[in-house]
Amino acid sequence: MKNTSQLRQMLQSDQLEFIMEAHHGLSARIVEEAGFKGIWASGLSISASLGVRDSNEASWTQVLDILEFMTDAVSIPILLDGDTGYGNFNNARRLVQKLEQRKVAGVCIEDKLFPKTNSFLDNGIQSLADIDEFCGKIKAMKDTQNDPDFVVVARIEALIAGCGHEEALRRAEAYRRAGADAVLVHSKRSDANEIQAFMNEWSNRLPVIIVPTKYYTTPTDIFRQMGISTVIWANHNLRSSVTAMQQTTRQIFKDESLAGIEQSVATVDEIFRLQNVDELQRAESKYLPSGGKGLGGG
Amino acid sequence: MKNTSQLRQMLQSDQLEFIMEAHHGLSARIVEEAGFKGIWASGLSISASLGVRDSNEASWTQVLDILEFMTDAVSIPILLDGDTGYGNFNNARRLVQKLEQRKVAGVCIEDKLFPKTNSFLDNGIQSLADIDEFCGKIKAMKDTQNDPDFVVVARIEALIAGCGHEEALRRAEAYRRAGADAVLVHSKRSDANEIQAFMNEWSNRLPVIIVPTKYYTTPTDIFRQMGISTVIWANHNLRSSVTAMQQTTRQIFKDESLAGIEQSVATVDEIFRLQNVDELQRAESKYLPSGGKGLGGG
Amino acid sequence: MKNTSQLRQMLQSDQLEFIMEAHHGLSARIVEEAGFKGIWASGLSISASLGVRDSNEASWTQVLDILEFMTDAVSIPILLDGDTGYGNFNNARRLVQKLEQRKVAGVCIEDKLFPKTNSFLDNGIQSLADIDEFCGKIKAMKDTQNDPDFVVVARIEALIAGCGHEEALRRAEAYRRAGADAVLVHSKRSDANEIQAFMNEWSNRLPVIIVPTKYYTTPTDIFRQMGISTVIWANHNLRSSVTAMQQTTRQIFKDESLAGIEQSVATVDEIFRLQNVDELQRAESKYLPSGGKGLGGG
Amino acid sequence: MKNTSQLRQMLQSDQLEFIMEAHHGLSARIVEEAGFKGIWASGLSISASLGVRDSNEASWTQVLDILEFMTDAVSIPILLDGDTGYGNFNNARRLVQKLEQRKVAGVCIEDKLFPKTNSFLDNGIQSLADIDEFCGKIKAMKDTQNDPDFVVVARIEALIAGCGHEEALRRAEAYRRAGADAVLVHSKRSDANEIQAFMNEWSNRLPVIIVPTKYYTTPTDIFRQMGISTVIWANHNLRSSVTAMQQTTRQIFKDESLAGIEQSVATVDEIFRLQNVDELQRAESKYLPSGGKGLGGG
Repeated sequence: MKNTSQLRQMLQSDQLEFIMEAHHGLSARIVEEAGFKGIWASGLSISASLGVRDSNEASWTQVLDILEFMTDAVSIPILLDGDTGYGNFNNARRLVQKLEQRKVAGVCIEDKLFPKTNSFLDNGIQSLADIDEFCGKIKAMKDTQNDPDFVVVARIEALIAGCGHEEALRRAEAYRRAGADAVLVHSKRSDANEIQAFMNEWSNRLPVIIVPTKYYTTPTDIFRQMGISTVIWANHNLRSSVTAMQQTTRQIFKDESLAGIEQSVATVDEIFRLQNVDELQRAESKYLPSGGKGLGGG
Repeated sequence: MKNTSQLRQMLQSDQLEFIMEAHHGLSARIVEEAGFKGIWASGLSISASLGVRDSNEASWTQVLDILEFMTDAVSIPILLDGDTGYGNFNNARRLVQKLEQRKVAGVCIEDKLFPKTNSFLDNGIQSLADIDEFCGKIKAMKDTQNDPDFVVVARIEALIAGCGHEEALRRAEAYRRAGADAVLVHSKRSDANEIQAFMNEWSNRLPVIIVPTKYYTTPTDIFRQMGISTVIWANHNLRSSVTAMQQTTRQIFKDESLAGIEQSVATVDEIFRLQNVDELQRAESKYLPSGGKGLGGG
Repeated sequence: MKNTSQLRQMLQSDQLEFIMEAHHGLSARIVEEAGFKGIWASGLSISASLGVRDSNEASWTQVLDILEFMTDAVSIPILLDGDTGYGNFNNARRLVQKLEQRKVAGVCIEDKLFPKTNSFLDNGIQSLADIDEFCGKIKAMKDTQNDPDFVVVARIEALIAGCGHEEALRRAEAYRRAGADAVLVHSKRSDANEIQAFMNEWSNRLPVIIVPTKYYTTPTDIFRQMGISTVIWANHNLRSSVTAMQQTTRQIFKDESLAGIEQSVATVDEIFRLQNVDELQRAESKYLPSGGKGLGGG
Repeated sequence: MKNTSQLRQMLQSDQLEFIMEAHHGLSARIVEEAGFKGIWASGLSISASLGVRDSNEASWTQVLDILEFMTDAVSIPILLDGDTGYGNFNNARRLVQKLEQRKVAGVCIEDKLFPKTNSFLDNGIQSLADIDEFCGKIKAMKDTQNDPDFVVVARIEALIAGCGHEEALRRAEAYRRAGADAVLVHSKRSDANEIQAFMNEWSNRLPVIIVPTKYYTTPTDIFRQMGISTVIWANHNLRSSVTAMQQTTRQIFKDESLAGIEQSVATVDEIFRLQNVDELQRAESKYLPSGGKGLGGG
């Protein structure tokens, strides 16, 4: 099955589905190996791993380059956290073409202004996009995609911006009419009350995706009861890698030795396995003249 | 002090120095924060993090893009693991120009053939470069650099290829005469005997760098006694991040919840801190009209 | 002299100066060889040569990649037509850092909204940027540059937008106070009357740059008398190349032969000369072992 | 019809076909508009337009970036002049994947060593690839392609290297057995005698492509009589653009005015037409809220 169809099927399935964050080819492969059916290419995680802020400091083509390594590394679908679509409807529809070429299964765009600010930052400048303008963007994206199963998710920032769930519902309905395949309703409360209020009135007109980074204590069965379609675990690979790298680096710095950490980190052979080195060695046997010795770059 | 001068000073200092691996902007910042004076931009780690093999599957300009994010993220010097220089002398000297523009402090090239194979792979095809050809490459690189403190390290693969320490010494001397600023003597034995044999006869004609990934049990004081200049901890940030991400991803997959891992991963605020979000908020106060609300992409 | 200082000197000189458009490394070299002291890296020409529209369809890093080839090809200064700075103040100041690394001598930003629309398009949506927001952008850029001679030009679109020369003057003064090094006053009239009206009241508080693409019949001495600093010939290399390629391609298509066009196009040797092939051949003599035969990729 | 199938059909057709060089999106569109059925993405032209040498100074991913703009700009098939495949079999098969994603219809690889030297340069270092190694590369590429109609052309440099047509025939047969879809037989003589000698013995075991840049005086009917499949007009758009840009730039420099050249260059409106600006204006009417005024970057 095409990866777009896999993603669409997850969104439309009767059971609660889960998507896990990755931010480079390596983390993507780790997510796939753990059994997840899909990957969230997080804007926060990708920007943080590059060393820049989640404010469109990396260009959209630099993000594309990361994504291309990610789709090359896995066979499960990737949903891109596509910020605002990186400009207006024209930038967003161009993005869709480029994502399809790189086998990204779908993109989520949010109703904020370019350049974006991370939703969890408390700086008060979370201006929302004009509804009509955002609907035009969704339409342009849907009209552009070649593969009918490519997924466009509309992310609603009304709760984040403090506009309440009525505004969220109004926007969700507008985005649904514009052609969105699902809505992502974002909240930064530490409980799921806003989400619950939304779900009570939404009646599943479209699949709903959530990101419980802040309300992580809410039991997952509550999400099932609400009728949520898909949960995104949004940035935890990045966050766990930070903790590990900080501890490892500090210990090596202090010890001036590897002896204390060798047993707690993946082996070099495990890295080779994740890189699929075996396949290259088999290919060398097949395609290089006997042994390949001395031929080099050919 | 320029970062090139910092790196040069480390190589020439009387005490044993340490350089820690990073593979993206984020890990580079973590290395700097831990107190290290320099960073090893590992070819294995960068390729693995991208999800490809350490066989020049990523193009040299894709590696440059990674490096640019890394140098932007730190002020300590970065030494690039530059494989074979990505081609002949002309490719290698072009690389030097591009590294200098991106504020990379130095590059290490190895005397193998393009495309390279990782030195720890047991496949027997570790053909060495012709000595004269490699010396021409070193000369071309040294003639090209604008900044006299930019560092070119010649990595000797003779021990890896099983040619013995006499061949290693012969090559080290040739590379020194060609203008190399230091030599990196690589070994994949689990003890430091080969390195010791080399050091016994080398008499520190140039600073020597080692990578004790395989002989990590050798006490660091032994390296001091040998007269080693600099030790590279070559891939341990990557390896620790793999272990952490595998564990985190598996647990979230099994639990269908974040509750079990939230306490063991870095907070979102810690990610923001590593991204230097504060600086952007101060800049918004300074450069955006009052509050910046509603202005968006301007 | 640094190329930034060269550009600054041109802007501040007493005589009328001229800058010629280029859109890739090759056209940049041709401009330098003709004797021009500076190059205009035109947004229209670069986007058209790529095959996309002048509406920020190419990402800002794709434009950077083009610029890097251009600065590598010449020693005269390049002034980038930087649209709106590709976002807000933060995108614009990041751009400055990246331009300085690539040895671009200056950038011109225009007071419109992202994504931009070409000023000569008659579609009525030439909304101007908020003055305060644009001044904040200029300040951020000036505060960011490392080289004090790097040039930031503020391009005023008030005449294009039909707001009259009073608005143009008001904006020019605001941008001057914000730190701009020069103003570019743009007009799409077929005469220079608007420009004359502006110059009459401006009193050369800052150097003024013009782009007489539409009022090309105005004698250049008139610009001298007005006190213009610099004239940009904005897109004529691109436009002449289009005519030539269309004619050549059509003739070859019709003739099914090269015989009719061989005499009218540059020789292959002229292409080699423009590529500076001689330098590589000398370098091969110097850096490759005797003759270099058979060594290949080393 | 897919563009791969179009290209394959051209190669296999009974009549002599013609492919015209392009080196960026704009020249690609001009070739399509003239009526050509296919495009040659020339390594010489692309490198020269970037301002670098035809010696793999631009990385293979930088070439990919150019190609992506080219395929976006046209619907006719593009055959890439892929040098040596940019490394060994593994680099070459990775290239095939990336070309297919970007809708490039085929690639021609030549039996020389990486980094390449242009075939028309008289420097004597045109070492040929080992036949078995090159055959392994062809096999790896054919085994990799997803689309059965993607085309791999094997370019034979034996005549250029002075090895005679017997060696050329031996290689052509080996490459045919390895799976090549066509052979390109290259010659730098000013007559077609070498080509004729090859064709006399080849008996069209595979379609033969030629590049008559040096033997351009040979009447095209001679190629038809020889049984050639396809002729590549290899670099004439670039060469005509150089002549035009040199003349235009020199005249503007001398005149200090545009008046003398305005009538001889394409209009700005013609540039807009080539950029397909009309489509964007229609899309703005469709996707932007009424008039789109003032909404900017959304």
